Amino acid sequence: MKYTAHINIMPLKELLDPQGKAVNSSLHNLGLTGINGVRIGKHITLQIEAHDKESAEKMTREACKKLLANQVMESFDFTVE
Amino acid sequence: MKYTAHINIMPLKELLDPQGKAVNSSLHNLGLTGINGVRIGKHITLQIEAHDKESAEKMTREACKKLLANQVMESFDFTVE
Repeated sequence: MKYTAHINIMPLKELLDPQGKAVNSSLHNLGLTGINGVRIGKHITLQIEAHDKESAEKMTREACKKLLANQVMESFDFTVE
Repeated sequence: MKYTAHINIMPLKELLDPQGKAVNSSLHNLGLTGINGVRIGKHITLQIEAHDKESAEKMTREACKKLLANQVMESFDFTVE
């Protein structure tokens, strides 16, 4: 079966996000002053060939832990469909 | 009212994603050979102060078009809640 995983990897809330801060200022300079708290992370999609949804989720979690997310600085969540 | 926007910005399907290709190979080297079609984009969250959901969505769309997404190479979608 073919599954698609959608992964979001975000900087931990406790950490500063300098890229987000820079974008926040730029948005204000563009007149969008109602926007704050910009945080920028990664969105990754994977195509997975697996027997069932559970094993697709297991592979996704393994990929996140081993390679995609740096858990010292980032948190991840994902959906598999 | 406070709203939170979740934005996904992905490279267009027609374009090569060299970063995704590199990650794909690395996942295979880690033994996750069932994973293919890796594509890597950005996930951005915004906190928006707006009168109603429609204006929050309008501000999010404006932010994407003016600054966050390069529409020559990227597509975006978002949800506001």
